[in-house]
Amino acid sequence: METKRVLIVMGSRSDLPSMEGCMKQLDDFQVGYEVRVLSAHRTPEAVLELSKTACERGIQVIIAAAGGAAHLAGVLASSTPLPVIGIPIQTSALGGLDSLLSTVQMPQGVPVATVAIGKSGARNAAILACQMIGLNDKSLQDKIVEFKKEQAQKVLEQSIVE
Amino acid sequence: METKRVLIVMGSRSDLPSMEGCMKQLDDFQVGYEVRVLSAHRTPEAVLELSKTACERGIQVIIAAAGGAAHLAGVLASSTPLPVIGIPIQTSALGGLDSLLSTVQMPQGVPVATVAIGKSGARNAAILACQMIGLNDKSLQDKIVEFKKEQAQKVLEQSIVE
Amino acid sequence: METKRVLIVMGSRSDLPSMEGCMKQLDDFQVGYEVRVLSAHRTPEAVLELSKTACERGIQVIIAAAGGAAHLAGVLASSTPLPVIGIPIQTSALGGLDSLLSTVQMPQGVPVATVAIGKSGARNAAILACQMIGLNDKSLQDKIVEFKKEQAQKVLEQSIVE
Amino acid sequence: METKRVLIVMGSRSDLPSMEGCMKQLDDFQVGYEVRVLSAHRTPEAVLELSKTACERGIQVIIAAAGGAAHLAGVLASSTPLPVIGIPIQTSALGGLDSLLSTVQMPQGVPVATVAIGKSGARNAAILACQMIGLNDKSLQDKIVEFKKEQAQKVLEQSIVE
Amino acid sequence: METKRVLIVMGSRSDLPSMEGCMKQLDDFQVGYEVRVLSAHRTPEAVLELSKTACERGIQVIIAAAGGAAHLAGVLASSTPLPVIGIPIQTSALGGLDSLLSTVQMPQGVPVATVAIGKSGARNAAILACQMIGLNDKSLQDKIVEFKKEQAQKVLEQSIVE
Amino acid sequence: METKRVLIVMGSRSDLPSMEGCMKQLDDFQVGYEVRVLSAHRTPEAVLELSKTACERGIQVIIAAAGGAAHLAGVLASSTPLPVIGIPIQTSALGGLDSLLSTVQMPQGVPVATVAIGKSGARNAAILACQMIGLNDKSLQDKIVEFKKEQAQKVLEQSIVE
Amino acid sequence: METKRVLIVMGSRSDLPSMEGCMKQLDDFQVGYEVRVLSAHRTPEAVLELSKTACERGIQVIIAAAGGAAHLAGVLASSTPLPVIGIPIQTSALGGLDSLLSTVQMPQGVPVATVAIGKSGARNAAILACQMIGLNDKSLQDKIVEFKKEQAQKVLEQSIVE
Amino acid sequence: METKRVLIVMGSRSDLPSMEGCMKQLDDFQVGYEVRVLSAHRTPEAVLELSKTACERGIQVIIAAAGGAAHLAGVLASSTPLPVIGIPIQTSALGGLDSLLSTVQMPQGVPVATVAIGKSGARNAAILACQMIGLNDKSLQDKIVEFKKEQAQKVLEQSIVE
Repeated sequence: METKRVLIVMGSRSDLPSMEGCMKQLDDFQVGYEVRVLSAHRTPEAVLELSKTACERGIQVIIAAAGGAAHLAGVLASSTPLPVIGIPIQTSALGGLDSLLSTVQMPQGVPVATVAIGKSGARNAAILACQMIGLNDKSLQDKIVEFKKEQAQKVLEQSIVE
Repeated sequence: METKRVLIVMGSRSDLPSMEGCMKQLDDFQVGYEVRVLSAHRTPEAVLELSKTACERGIQVIIAAAGGAAHLAGVLASSTPLPVIGIPIQTSALGGLDSLLSTVQMPQGVPVATVAIGKSGARNAAILACQMIGLNDKSLQDKIVEFKKEQAQKVLEQSIVE
Repeated sequence: METKRVLIVMGSRSDLPSMEGCMKQLDDFQVGYEVRVLSAHRTPEAVLELSKTACERGIQVIIAAAGGAAHLAGVLASSTPLPVIGIPIQTSALGGLDSLLSTVQMPQGVPVATVAIGKSGARNAAILACQMIGLNDKSLQDKIVEFKKEQAQKVLEQSIVE
Repeated sequence: METKRVLIVMGSRSDLPSMEGCMKQLDDFQVGYEVRVLSAHRTPEAVLELSKTACERGIQVIIAAAGGAAHLAGVLASSTPLPVIGIPIQTSALGGLDSLLSTVQMPQGVPVATVAIGKSGARNAAILACQMIGLNDKSLQDKIVEFKKEQAQKVLEQSIVE
Repeated sequence: METKRVLIVMGSRSDLPSMEGCMKQLDDFQVGYEVRVLSAHRTPEAVLELSKTACERGIQVIIAAAGGAAHLAGVLASSTPLPVIGIPIQTSALGGLDSLLSTVQMPQGVPVATVAIGKSGARNAAILACQMIGLNDKSLQDKIVEFKKEQAQKVLEQSIVE
Repeated sequence: METKRVLIVMGSRSDLPSMEGCMKQLDDFQVGYEVRVLSAHRTPEAVLELSKTACERGIQVIIAAAGGAAHLAGVLASSTPLPVIGIPIQTSALGGLDSLLSTVQMPQGVPVATVAIGKSGARNAAILACQMIGLNDKSLQDKIVEFKKEQAQKVLEQSIVE
Repeated sequence: METKRVLIVMGSRSDLPSMEGCMKQLDDFQVGYEVRVLSAHRTPEAVLELSKTACERGIQVIIAAAGGAAHLAGVLASSTPLPVIGIPIQTSALGGLDSLLSTVQMPQGVPVATVAIGKSGARNAAILACQMIGLNDKSLQDKIVEFKKEQAQKVLEQSIVE
Repeated sequence: METKRVLIVMGSRSDLPSMEGCMKQLDDFQVGYEVRVLSAHRTPEAVLELSKTACERGIQVIIAAAGGAAHLAGVLASSTPLPVIGIPIQTSALGGLDSLLSTVQMPQGVPVATVAIGKSGARNAAILACQMIGLNDKSLQDKIVEFKKEQAQKVLEQSIVE
């Protein structure tokens, strides 16, 4: 069985569609992950527990997605030495500016590695997690190099518009 | 000794100057309070502990002040049946828009009663707390009525500009 | 007959759909309420009259919902010692940033307890009102404790995503 | 004695420096005015009273200046058939965006003629008031025409930079 | 034939649907108006010509609606002693924040009386124009008083929500 | 005598300090220019006249700097086939967001080539103007190539921080 | 065969619909262009190569369209003495404010001539490019003069709304 | 000699004061680093070269700080399989909102791990880099655990305000 090296936490089941690209990308890189739906505001202790035990359970990177007053990534980041990536979910009223600022503007001492609002961010969170894990997994790093090449190749092949 | 009915929590000692009006206003209304500096990100469990025990310790309202990705009020609100008031601290980069959105845009189920950014908000948090406590303390409610009258009186006396 | 302890005021009948969650939540907590549609700009005196008489009529908390230059909560807050909760209604042009700033940025002396923009805010306003009333109603406070537990339980039961 | 045709209301004595240009401009146009400091939130009834009696007292235009959740102009506009001009006062946290949106985003039925944030707006409010009064005061309208000519002349004389 | 006392100018035919409430409201008040579609950027001289001749043609108020870098009201205001009302049209990218700031942030000496973004603003522009004209037309001012009463009455009649 | 190929127009003499880098940069590239202070709102016809005659007078590029509801570049762009560059001046209330949106959000048919807010934009406007003129002046284009090389060289020489 | 004087680069094939007006406008002015889809982030070297060789290949103006953290225009501008026009693509989360700021706020030394967000900007980029090329192509400049006349004519013919 | 595991790149020497906390924090964790001042717009090829060779030179994490249209982190991220952390520098006009959006809103495929605007972000970038490196360096991870403990301890010791 594949080791689960990434822990994905999202604030609500309604975030699942926004997060599909994240899981898909980890599958593509064959990096195992587990997914939890937990709320920093409804289940703060479960979130802290998850955060505190993540490292010893073999998790290497935590990805957290939340919208509005998005505290999930910050709360997870409080209690682990692991890097935490935050995905600001797009919101209906303010487009996700609230999610972005709540995720990125962390105080000194507790960083959250914030990516773009919404689906682009979800996919990029997976890539960023793999870049981190790849620091110590040459084969994964090679996959990233390959991914970047293919990505560039695809752009170049379709570059000329008639 | 005066009972401590309000718990004031701020994210950093550097928030103290912004918060003086809050303490001053509670003093004026003779409502006892205790003040703690705790960080949702550095000491999350102490924050949760404070929140969980507040009610049984006789606290009636919690006031929380924080800036940037201001999660303090939200984390406090997660674990208490007491009303939590959030004061968004003004910030140098974005003026406090980050603090405001992080404090007010809470998800369903966990409200934070948010007041204005900065010093006006700090003083108003105290008044709002007293309005809540005053629901069951006729003498305090009378003080608020009096306060509002005096406030109006002061405006009216100086209303005409030569 | 159930006492009406909460007064809900909205600026326009068109705000009713946004406000359903608020009424529903009060029903769930079995807290009586009355609902009025009044405009701070079209019927300012009726608003002031409502505010000035609310306390003596047994109202304990006022909830006000308005959009755009949202003055309703502020005007209600001017003339009562009761706590006033403001819900910024989402707007088509600016998403509700206008409603939020008009509601929350109150001057010293007249707080409005502001919750999130739109439907989340509407439901949270009800919970916040009950938290305030619960300060003096142990059975209601217990319901809030229970509500928070169930809410957490529901999250935890569905936490693991296959 | 000069008739007072303009009523200037500001939310706080601290707005006086921002408002000097407004008074100066009315002086220049020899249009009489009275100045009041009143708060929509502290003295709502005095504001309404002022608004309701303005027309019969010979006031032709009301100018209101306020900052933050700036409701003053809106409340004045609620109770008079006179045109009301709103000046959003610059604020320390959000620069006056809060004042601007609270002043300009009025609902259908109750317009506020909003001018620029701060000192430019204060002076322009006076000019706008005179343009309105000038509709029925040929001599004042002539002064505006003259003012515009002089203003243009001054620009043109200094137009060429060596 | 009814005198045309209001000149409505819009930047594009596509603004007509947003502007219907404006015309409708002037019809209700029986205030004559003419409507022009002209662009500050495509036909600047026609705009200036319109502005310069408006007063002598009996126009009393100019209403201008434009979106994006909305210069129309400002250009009209440059060349007339008449009051100019600006309506910021809602835009797809920025919701109308661009239109609002381009319309309201006028420099000293050339005010534009700005109303709310979009349809509310369009209707309010008409009311504001009538308030200005009403300064010298008692019968129109009476209509405004009546309109405000009816508006309040309508709200009050439907105020109670079962 | 050097031909004046660039026309610099600014909305106010107070913009001169922000614009020094623009003139300095044109001097460095030995491109002649003339400077005018004119206001789109106070002297619209002088602005249009300047714009209409610029091409025949040998001007190749127009640079316009203005703040707030910054219409100057747009009005100049209306009446010339020449490219017009707009510099949004930084403002005290909104930092220049108003100037930026008023300058850049031009409607179809009338582009303004907008550069950064404030001093960076001022210097870049000069470079951009020279890039345009350089399309037909090999020696100037060579200077730009040289400038870019020197600029890079300077960065590279100081690149390593001990 | 028509010389290609304009190089259009867009960050993604999904930008093509937004860019149609740009191509259409160049066709109308009979200015040849080539279109490339390249990404500043996926194919940075191809972008730099394109930029460095553009001038010698006879390109006179580069137009770049990108959304979000829109670096494409800036990267192209780094390596060419040609003027580079940037079109900020509208985005779903923030409406294009991100694209606009990423495109326009360039540091000293490397200007990007930024036009409006989205389709208006796309068409205007083409016009602006032709204005630049027209500095040295009298026949193209005449077409622009003609285009502006027709555009004005069309407005004037439909100016009066019944 | 200490291995250089972190590469810090900043867009301008003027960013050095904002970045001191970053270097200080790496010193505290005894993680070696090199510092370069390079510009994505003035020296794009040097930036790409730095990025392409970083991995083979033993660099594990790249930290990039830039302001305004902040492309530096994005350009670095384009050409390396290493994780890239972006620090948005605070700006005078827009407070750093431009830097933030230019850094964080990256397209799919090329993530930048964005931290808070300004000095908090600078220090947090160092911590985040160490968290990443710590995934494979138990002693460094232990230091982070220790750092978090001390940080919490310091807060707790000073938590009670008299």
